[in-house]
Amino acid sequence: MRATLEYAGIRVKDLEASVRFYTKVLGMIERGRKRLGETRGVLVELSGEGGGVPLELNWYERGSTFDTPYVPGEGLDHLGFRVSDLERAVAEAQKAGYPVIQEIKTATNRWVYIQDPNGIWVELNG
Amino acid sequence: MRATLEYAGIRVKDLEASVRFYTKVLGMIERGRKRLGETRGVLVELSGEGGGVPLELNWYERGSTFDTPYVPGEGLDHLGFRVSDLERAVAEAQKAGYPVIQEIKTATNRWVYIQDPNGIWVELNG
Repeated sequence: MRATLEYAGIRVKDLEASVRFYTKVLGMIERGRKRLGETRGVLVELSGEGGGVPLELNWYERGSTFDTPYVPGEGLDHLGFRVSDLERAVAEAQKAGYPVIQEIKTATNRWVYIQDPNGIWVELNG
Repeated sequence: MRATLEYAGIRVKDLEASVRFYTKVLGMIERGRKRLGETRGVLVELSGEGGGVPLELNWYERGSTFDTPYVPGEGLDHLGFRVSDLERAVAEAQKAGYPVIQEIKTATNRWVYIQDPNGIWVELNG
């Protein structure tokens, strides 16, 4: 087959806390919200103000077969974001309660990681 | 900040097994491969033949601080792929050893999930 990746869907424990993080801290826009009776879940569709890759937040209510004990795990290594001004982005994230947990410097580049409310690693590359 | 999501990076236990799954079964294209001394890892960049969201495979060698016990976890709920012919895609995946593990039907749509070599849920929507 020739499959096209359309979006990444992350699972969240507290839907509104994650919506706040991705919209207020990272500045993404909520594009849509659906309740799915089939999975007893709610999905929120986000993307950047200027486009980019869509991110889906998946939340499941109590009693859903997907409402299981939550560990972020290793499956999702990280979500890779670009920002226009890394220093400013780092300062804003820190002020919002999301400090840098890892910084990587190579000969030509530098990027950092913060953790979202579920412990998912979010890369900021400037 | 106004961050733009550029790609999703998944962690993989066996780099070549995951490259085979995403290129041979899903039909993505390997666009690049880099070794990062800073993390003692290798990253492989993939995207669909017709474009779409880039997927990064992150593998870490023994001794890397990221070479930790691996569980897929709940952080990555799923990766959402579109295929042109869902029936054919399902038959091809099944034949390659990746059977459907969940099917969701709504009033207007139907999609299925298979699991990648690391147990990550891969949605196929036709």
